[in-house]
Amino acid sequence: MRYELYYWPTIQGRGEFVRLALEDAGADYRDMARGKGGMAAMTRMLDSKKGIPPFAPPFLKAGTMVIGQTANILFYLGPRHGLAPKSEAARLQLHELQLTITDFVAEVHDTHHPIGVSLYYEDQKGAAKKRSAEFLKERVPKYLGYFERILKASDGAYVTGRKATYVDLSLFQIVEGLRYAFPKRMKKFEREIPDLIDLHERVAVRPNIKAYLDSDRRIAFNKDGIFRHYKALDK
Amino acid sequence: MRYELYYWPTIQGRGEFVRLALEDAGADYRDMARGKGGMAAMTRMLDSKKGIPPFAPPFLKAGTMVIGQTANILFYLGPRHGLAPKSEAARLQLHELQLTITDFVAEVHDTHHPIGVSLYYEDQKGAAKKRSAEFLKERVPKYLGYFERILKASDGAYVTGRKATYVDLSLFQIVEGLRYAFPKRMKKFEREIPDLIDLHERVAVRPNIKAYLDSDRRIAFNKDGIFRHYKALDK
Repeated sequence: MRYELYYWPTIQGRGEFVRLALEDAGADYRDMARGKGGMAAMTRMLDSKKGIPPFAPPFLKAGTMVIGQTANILFYLGPRHGLAPKSEAARLQLHELQLTITDFVAEVHDTHHPIGVSLYYEDQKGAAKKRSAEFLKERVPKYLGYFERILKASDGAYVTGRKATYVDLSLFQIVEGLRYAFPKRMKKFEREIPDLIDLHERVAVRPNIKAYLDSDRRIAFNKDGIFRHYKALDK
Repeated sequence: MRYELYYWPTIQGRGEFVRLALEDAGADYRDMARGKGGMAAMTRMLDSKKGIPPFAPPFLKAGTMVIGQTANILFYLGPRHGLAPKSEAARLQLHELQLTITDFVAEVHDTHHPIGVSLYYEDQKGAAKKRSAEFLKERVPKYLGYFERILKASDGAYVTGRKATYVDLSLFQIVEGLRYAFPKRMKKFEREIPDLIDLHERVAVRPNIKAYLDSDRRIAFNKDGIFRHYKALDK
């Protein structure tokens, strides 16, 4: 089956967590909105007045199913592509971790948009500075410390043991993103999370991930995505 | 099986979405942190250095499983208690809706804490006013309009048809919460979402929900939960 991924064509954003899983799995997929007519198709599906359309991109068309919400897409893909265990208990526990990553990603976004998405960064720069300071001081250590603790307790190199899961791929992306957005702060902070940094290196050299990162399918970080670099926020 | 629910004992918060499902189902559960020694037990479980502890309350102990993240708990409970369909496709679609409610709830929280959770409301009141104005103008119509559209397209009175699901219970709670936090604005806005308001009334009179709401198990809204009423934010 060829999957159809629908996501904004010029950013990594939330879609990147899905792209990484599809790429690592070597799955057959098309990144629809980057092809001809794809944006129009995506908009039509979002605006549908029939049934239950997705609320927002990313969403994945898999046969007749249309699956929205990043963590939900990964929950579906995981056991089908060797990126999640198959038992219900283990699948739910992995999903729980992905939902915590989802919460963290929303907080990352709000560092540059603490007042609202309909306003420009420049119009909320004062609040963004304060929120970023709080985020770096309180939230990054809380979230990343949690995953570091889990990696330390794991009996393998990955969060649930010896096999990489979609959560490991997502944690790779979290480290990538934080390094891009807050290079000064991350440089200092990385010594606190050695196991997460090791995990990042291990994911980066997985053959399919490496090939993906070197390809033009990987969109560069930029000032429209979730992770954005503003010097004023990286104090 | 008797479930053990772990959540803060003095607020509705995120735990309330789980309480509503357990109550509607007539499930056998204990709200642990409201009983003797419960807070200490909750803290111990969160601080565990073994395996994969929950990141935050609420979490549910079901036999040997410990399930964290509100939407994940509901995903588990739903089909076991007649509050979700059983097919994988339908379960994922319902879960997708719950994850969109989860996103909305995080935005509700940030109306009074746009800068950070470690600061008092009073120390971020200016930003809270701006964020709340944006939230009421842009986000509430976007999210609630989405659910209104789905209810209009449904061939029954509930989001997925003729049977109530945990998503319907959660939407009841969203209307309750918004009415408490933003009474002035909601009064005007409710005429835009007649089907959601009908749904709210329909859930409120379900026998188990009605009995729950009338009991002292239902904690009153207050200024520590997700939904908080501050006059300055309800312009």
